[in-house]
Amino acid sequence: MNEAAPQEFQEWSVDQWFNHEGQLRLADLRGRVVALEAFQMLCPGCVTHGLPQAQRILETFSKDEVAVVGLHTVFEHHDAMQPHSLKAFLYEYRIRFPVGVDRPSEKGIPETMERFKLRGTPSLLLFDRQGILKAHHFGAVSDMQIGAEISKLLSEEND
Amino acid sequence: MNEAAPQEFQEWSVDQWFNHEGQLRLADLRGRVVALEAFQMLCPGCVTHGLPQAQRILETFSKDEVAVVGLHTVFEHHDAMQPHSLKAFLYEYRIRFPVGVDRPSEKGIPETMERFKLRGTPSLLLFDRQGILKAHHFGAVSDMQIGAEISKLLSEEND
Amino acid sequence: MNEAAPQEFQEWSVDQWFNHEGQLRLADLRGRVVALEAFQMLCPGCVTHGLPQAQRILETFSKDEVAVVGLHTVFEHHDAMQPHSLKAFLYEYRIRFPVGVDRPSEKGIPETMERFKLRGTPSLLLFDRQGILKAHHFGAVSDMQIGAEISKLLSEEND
Amino acid sequence: MNEAAPQEFQEWSVDQWFNHEGQLRLADLRGRVVALEAFQMLCPGCVTHGLPQAQRILETFSKDEVAVVGLHTVFEHHDAMQPHSLKAFLYEYRIRFPVGVDRPSEKGIPETMERFKLRGTPSLLLFDRQGILKAHHFGAVSDMQIGAEISKLLSEEND
Repeated sequence: MNEAAPQEFQEWSVDQWFNHEGQLRLADLRGRVVALEAFQMLCPGCVTHGLPQAQRILETFSKDEVAVVGLHTVFEHHDAMQPHSLKAFLYEYRIRFPVGVDRPSEKGIPETMERFKLRGTPSLLLFDRQGILKAHHFGAVSDMQIGAEISKLLSEEND
Repeated sequence: MNEAAPQEFQEWSVDQWFNHEGQLRLADLRGRVVALEAFQMLCPGCVTHGLPQAQRILETFSKDEVAVVGLHTVFEHHDAMQPHSLKAFLYEYRIRFPVGVDRPSEKGIPETMERFKLRGTPSLLLFDRQGILKAHHFGAVSDMQIGAEISKLLSEEND
Repeated sequence: MNEAAPQEFQEWSVDQWFNHEGQLRLADLRGRVVALEAFQMLCPGCVTHGLPQAQRILETFSKDEVAVVGLHTVFEHHDAMQPHSLKAFLYEYRIRFPVGVDRPSEKGIPETMERFKLRGTPSLLLFDRQGILKAHHFGAVSDMQIGAEISKLLSEEND
Repeated sequence: MNEAAPQEFQEWSVDQWFNHEGQLRLADLRGRVVALEAFQMLCPGCVTHGLPQAQRILETFSKDEVAVVGLHTVFEHHDAMQPHSLKAFLYEYRIRFPVGVDRPSEKGIPETMERFKLRGTPSLLLFDRQGILKAHHFGAVSDMQIGAEISKLLSEEND
């Protein structure tokens, strides 16, 4: 599912990172296309489809051109998916790209999920070189489609 | 991998069950062939291979003839795989057959794992109608092989 | 699909064999369980499902216990599936077990297909050690089910 | 495998078409990116990988932007893969895009295969909107990579 995306820059909201030292902001990735894989560690569709696809994005494109980032955005079973559990999950599934923990809010829906209006997991968000959200997929989408969309963003002017 | 199996009856060691009221002992299943799928919720081979195969055993054979039982046997990342997390995992992966929690011991290797000399997860153990362990597979084994082994146990005398 | 099978012995009708010298009759295989994979070389379900499953039967069971035999039973596109084309197909798909050409009849439906009342391809027929047809599957059937059925036939008395 | 491609326009060499009335020249497709899937009907890698991928290209991109064309380029088992057999194959595998028969030559290697220096089947050739060969893959290549390459060609100037 591809939905109309807002046209202004919005930053994600993350305090804690795995596979990355210090903070990592979307703004820091300016100049590269960014693929953000939003997932929950106990979501079967994320384990079967979303995360392996993120891994294939990493293997297909140059790291200088495309940044792959995970977002652990927990909106259910909070007790079962705390950061210490996520750490074990990332180790066992050999996920080596940066993964941020979406900042919890009192409402149960974490902040980035709310800000980008995610409908659930897995969701794949593609940002252009200026950090503007250009594609927003909820659920399964084919590798060929994602390859085409990323390539289209890469071919746009880098100004 | 199929290893020589001891010939005497041994009970598993489980206090807590999901998808089952009260206790469930191997001895209670006398008269049926038993397929015990030993797994950890954060083990990729269990999620990809072991648990779906257990599900296919359930769908292939009559419940009156073959009992499928899961054993959550945690020997690493203990904090990340506590029973409350397992509960969420079973819900999300729609696992409906009985799953017992292997009783922890001070040594880190839980009791049933130690007793049956499991080498890791996933492990699939097949017991005959008298509850004697007859096959012990560690890692991936084909559906055709498992179907053949269960059928062979079913064809043995029920005395 | 599993259909009621006749209880008397019936021989297949084949003149020409690939991967086998001379004639090969069902009667010659007495003492072994026989898995007969009926296929057409231009049938997608045969290429995707039936023939790979026949190959897995070959790999799972001892050749002394289970014989795997192919039957090329052409009932459509006759010109495109002549024996010289079948020969190239078997070479390219690396099929090494014996494959017989179902004997054509004037009606278009070849003789073995007619005799065993095959409904189409792929069809998998299982014969017991006496050569009696015991299971007849049209279309896809799971590996676990086939493994169980063959094992059941193997456990029957060999008299 | 991606090889350096010549930079001048070259036409393919085809007399006979399936799924298309009359002749279809590469030059006729000017303005569109062209994906040419070169295959043999008895090549397992073509059936498993190449042709399904061509089908996914067809489903992913607009027909006004990307033309998918098959080329039956027979260099072995000539007797088994004559046009009347290809016709049955296309029908059974439900291939609906235009498929041309590479023109045979006396040397055994058909003319288009020789002209484009194909190394075997499956081969996927991508031509830009002017009909210039821009990518040449022999064997399996990922959907994500192909999606990216087609999209890149689409984003080039259409002059």
